[in-house]
Amino acid sequence: MKYDLYNDNLLDKVKTASYEELDELCSDIRAFLVDSISETGGHLASNLGVVELTVALHRVYDSPKDKIIYDVGHQSYVHKILTGRAAGFGNLRQYKGLSGFPKRRESEHDVYETGHSSTSLSAALGLAVARDIRKESNDVIAVIGDGSMTGGIAYEALNNIGASKTRIRIILNDNGMSISDNVGSLSRHLSSLRTSDKYLNAKHQINSALGTVPIVGSRLKAGISATKDRIKHSIISDDAALFEALGITYLGPVDGHNLEALTEAIEASNHINGPTILHVITTKGKGYEPAEENPSKFHGIGVFDIESGETKQSSGNESYSAVFGKKLVDIAADNRNVAAITAAMGDATGLGPFSELYPDRFFDVGIAEQHAVTFAAGLASNGMVPVVAIYSSFLQRAFDFIIEDVCLQNLHVVFAIDRAGLVGADGETHHGVFDLSYLNLIPGITVFAPAGALQLKQMLEYAVNEMSGPVAIRYPRGSAQIKEPSLLGDFDGTNTTIKTGKDVTILAVGAMLDTGSEVCERLASLGYDAGLVHVSVIKPLSPELGKLDTDLVVIIEDNTVCGGFGSSFASENHARSYDIMIKGVPDEYIEHGTVAELRRQCGLDTDSIVKGVVEHFERKA
Amino acid sequence: MKYDLYNDNLLDKVKTASYEELDELCSDIRAFLVDSISETGGHLASNLGVVELTVALHRVYDSPKDKIIYDVGHQSYVHKILTGRAAGFGNLRQYKGLSGFPKRRESEHDVYETGHSSTSLSAALGLAVARDIRKESNDVIAVIGDGSMTGGIAYEALNNIGASKTRIRIILNDNGMSISDNVGSLSRHLSSLRTSDKYLNAKHQINSALGTVPIVGSRLKAGISATKDRIKHSIISDDAALFEALGITYLGPVDGHNLEALTEAIEASNHINGPTILHVITTKGKGYEPAEENPSKFHGIGVFDIESGETKQSSGNESYSAVFGKKLVDIAADNRNVAAITAAMGDATGLGPFSELYPDRFFDVGIAEQHAVTFAAGLASNGMVPVVAIYSSFLQRAFDFIIEDVCLQNLHVVFAIDRAGLVGADGETHHGVFDLSYLNLIPGITVFAPAGALQLKQMLEYAVNEMSGPVAIRYPRGSAQIKEPSLLGDFDGTNTTIKTGKDVTILAVGAMLDTGSEVCERLASLGYDAGLVHVSVIKPLSPELGKLDTDLVVIIEDNTVCGGFGSSFASENHARSYDIMIKGVPDEYIEHGTVAELRRQCGLDTDSIVKGVVEHFERKA
Repeated sequence: MKYDLYNDNLLDKVKTASYEELDELCSDIRAFLVDSISETGGHLASNLGVVELTVALHRVYDSPKDKIIYDVGHQSYVHKILTGRAAGFGNLRQYKGLSGFPKRRESEHDVYETGHSSTSLSAALGLAVARDIRKESNDVIAVIGDGSMTGGIAYEALNNIGASKTRIRIILNDNGMSISDNVGSLSRHLSSLRTSDKYLNAKHQINSALGTVPIVGSRLKAGISATKDRIKHSIISDDAALFEALGITYLGPVDGHNLEALTEAIEASNHINGPTILHVITTKGKGYEPAEENPSKFHGIGVFDIESGETKQSSGNESYSAVFGKKLVDIAADNRNVAAITAAMGDATGLGPFSELYPDRFFDVGIAEQHAVTFAAGLASNGMVPVVAIYSSFLQRAFDFIIEDVCLQNLHVVFAIDRAGLVGADGETHHGVFDLSYLNLIPGITVFAPAGALQLKQMLEYAVNEMSGPVAIRYPRGSAQIKEPSLLGDFDGTNTTIKTGKDVTILAVGAMLDTGSEVCERLASLGYDAGLVHVSVIKPLSPELGKLDTDLVVIIEDNTVCGGFGSSFASENHARSYDIMIKGVPDEYIEHGTVAELRRQCGLDTDSIVKGVVEHFERKA
Repeated sequence: MKYDLYNDNLLDKVKTASYEELDELCSDIRAFLVDSISETGGHLASNLGVVELTVALHRVYDSPKDKIIYDVGHQSYVHKILTGRAAGFGNLRQYKGLSGFPKRRESEHDVYETGHSSTSLSAALGLAVARDIRKESNDVIAVIGDGSMTGGIAYEALNNIGASKTRIRIILNDNGMSISDNVGSLSRHLSSLRTSDKYLNAKHQINSALGTVPIVGSRLKAGISATKDRIKHSIISDDAALFEALGITYLGPVDGHNLEALTEAIEASNHINGPTILHVITTKGKGYEPAEENPSKFHGIGVFDIESGETKQSSGNESYSAVFGKKLVDIAADNRNVAAITAAMGDATGLGPFSELYPDRFFDVGIAEQHAVTFAAGLASNGMVPVVAIYSSFLQRAFDFIIEDVCLQNLHVVFAIDRAGLVGADGETHHGVFDLSYLNLIPGITVFAPAGALQLKQMLEYAVNEMSGPVAIRYPRGSAQIKEPSLLGDFDGTNTTIKTGKDVTILAVGAMLDTGSEVCERLASLGYDAGLVHVSVIKPLSPELGKLDTDLVVIIEDNTVCGGFGSSFASENHARSYDIMIKGVPDEYIEHGTVAELRRQCGLDTDSIVKGVVEHFERKA
């Protein structure tokens, strides 16, 4: 290491060092990232891809006066290192440690928080317009991947940015894939630009081409057009039709690992006073062979061995995602109407095997949850049974379409909602703790939550083959193993009363069965007559469920207490003889940490729940 | 009238009649629309614009085998007339009468229901893919306006349609405006196409150009390209870059009021075996002068005088929208950081005056609710106070962005949520009955609901100038007059206890104050000691509110009973001595009708509530 990433003032260095020195800095950063993430886990491949790009941005721009927004945010590690946070990487994504995403509470250089894809352009326009109104002069830069460009809001923003004519620098970080391989005609369009031989790489070429562009507002368009005719064959591709049609000047492509070319291209774009898009070609995983070879595996990865690139052994238990994916393959073998849809998360949701066996019935629509759901509604309205596999927090994007397209038409669409509940290290933006609430309020939908692999399989079969309207099945991240699968009978669309209890009855929702069972045992060992019901059907609320001969009902759910199962249980069962205690995720944003740590923080662990119940009875006594 | 629109088999006629005869049919349909809507109200201008287009589509295609989807759906009246529903127009948009939108329950010709904008392309792809999987051969046609093209999901769909290469006919109904004037760079792009002089208008020109395109799958692209070079200067504009970049063959523009040209163009597009987009230029309000001159007024209009185009007198009371818009102008005069954002609903949300007085701080982003909210977050993160005015049901589109961009960053964005509660004639897709629930579940947001003009003004002032985090103010469609404004004191961020009652206490949420007050009086006249609290603060839930010395709490809210105010009140107040009765919108989709009729249906009228309370006490006695 030539640089002391912990102590050097890197923001100064990137501005003053020579390109040769900066190449060394980039090497040091790469080594640091691989070392550090091999021990903590995290987003590796995307960060290795943007080392030079991030250095170049900080070389040209003056953060935080100039405001850099990282779309989706998981590629902000290099930015964090450059802005003095290398020491935090020892606790990256750990409880109370450094976040894996931009956070305003961490640094003044994190001007806007991201986590979900495709928001950076809208946010950048907001920052730029506020600047214009106040007649300030800083730059606003949005760094957005080609995958994020498939999200509808990115297009809504481009439509407004193009019309606004304001000064915004869009850096299109094109690595030819989002998390999975990229899809759609935009991807083809970018690919045609990428493979052109008109790389931006010569300083003089760029400067002579752009040097004469007048930097004035209203005369800009004319100026650009005239200039463009001259330079079109050197740096602006004929084929950049999409962006040009939307009124945004396209520059590129430029090699995203050539610091000098990159820096010059960024500087060149600054000569244009309206919105620009600079097309930067990067390699995901750049510089670390295992990640270059398998960027999808190294997108978000756990602890791994640097030499081999192998991840350290996990529990060996199948994840809910894998169980779901395999079962859907079985179901689809018999039911030829079954189709699977994912929004750029084919492997992560377990649909890899399905996509290989049934490519004609597999649809990866890109980061386009809205389209995923309405496309599914279209399929269902014409006789198919689409299964839409999307993470809980990302499905929030499709909320309106679940209401208006699927449920209003009572279509048989099955939602496989992965990463429900607290997800751990990804933190605030990724916890799936709102889904029971946002689904609960929709008329006509059935909402299931399984405990364990066997019940998930049975539920999926039931939802696809035994039902006819909209159904959602929500399940958590991680292992689908539960402690006592024998507690549950075959799934038949109803809840399971495992044990009755005169003093207290635990209603354990979905994957909280293990916790509920532990709480029940602990209370029994303390002398309480404690019952246990597994709630696998959240909606419709079973009228039977409220008819309990017990003194206290304790609801355990890994969902916000606002509007979840506990809330609907309490508001439906007004006339009752028992008290109700709702143990869910509190009404606040929950940061990152292990699931166990976060449950403890939320009072959703066995100890806290038992304590709460005992205190309740002590108060009552 | 030459045609009997009620009894003729119009679907037969449109296929067999001469163009001269069809021109007469179009005249008859226009006369019928103007006559009929002048008496019932409804969407006039958009339907007058698509008379020829709808006739031409039914001339070329064979509905319902061929499936026509009308984006946003309010322009489906002509389709309804042609498919045998003219007789229903006497009860258009009335309780139990014909819907103003496509409804599968009405006709097999309504293959897919719409109501919110921009979904038709995704749905059409679903229908087309299901067809392909089953190896059927019908056509799928999506009729989408230029305004709807600004919605992100339309772009997500185009990205997938272009890549799919499947046979889909997109008809771009370009009238140069959505509901308000169109905005954004897409609009500019379309305008440049529209004003080109390359109109499609000669049968031979089109057929000779397209006659030789090979209709085969894999060889199509090459075939098209070769052909395109030949015909590019006759019918395919050089400038149609946006669609071509996305892999969709562009044809047009064609005069949307020239039946012959239109028919020929549609037939011509059928020679192309991949996805096509036919650019049709129409005039909103065509054929009825007052509507042509003021299409925005005649977009959705009440009863009007045909001769003058004047609407019949309304109550004369100012609407909540108008009160909001005027007050925001006052606030913005003093607070230079205030900006206003609308998603293609400037006039309808009352922002007309603001847009004229403060054009630099007014932003109409198009039908792009996602961008509207994230753009607002960007503005707020850079010191502005954006006020985002969007209808309750449309704001569902921005759900994820309210959670992730605004509330997670605790930004000071004010949501002015119009058309909350039951809206009346627009029905199922437009009722704003989910907002209290979908906002309730979001951490950190404050949710207000005013009763009457004065309280709305005070609330807006309070939200903009006294608060710092995210705030939502939701208010209904229509008059902001309430019966007894004096019941409410100056708004200070708390609820108002109007009267205490030992037997029963009414908690009236927001604009339900009048009903609550009536219920209270009626119960008093029946001998009950009845209290009344106005709930203007839905979230955070006041802990004081639950401390009531009363036997029964009756909650009245124009929101679903699932997850609304009643639900959070009931689930927060476990330990209590009173019973709870929640009177809200039931957990089902509510059709169209007057607000009074729909409230009666929902049991939300004074009679039903009083009856329920009396029965409760009789049961208890």
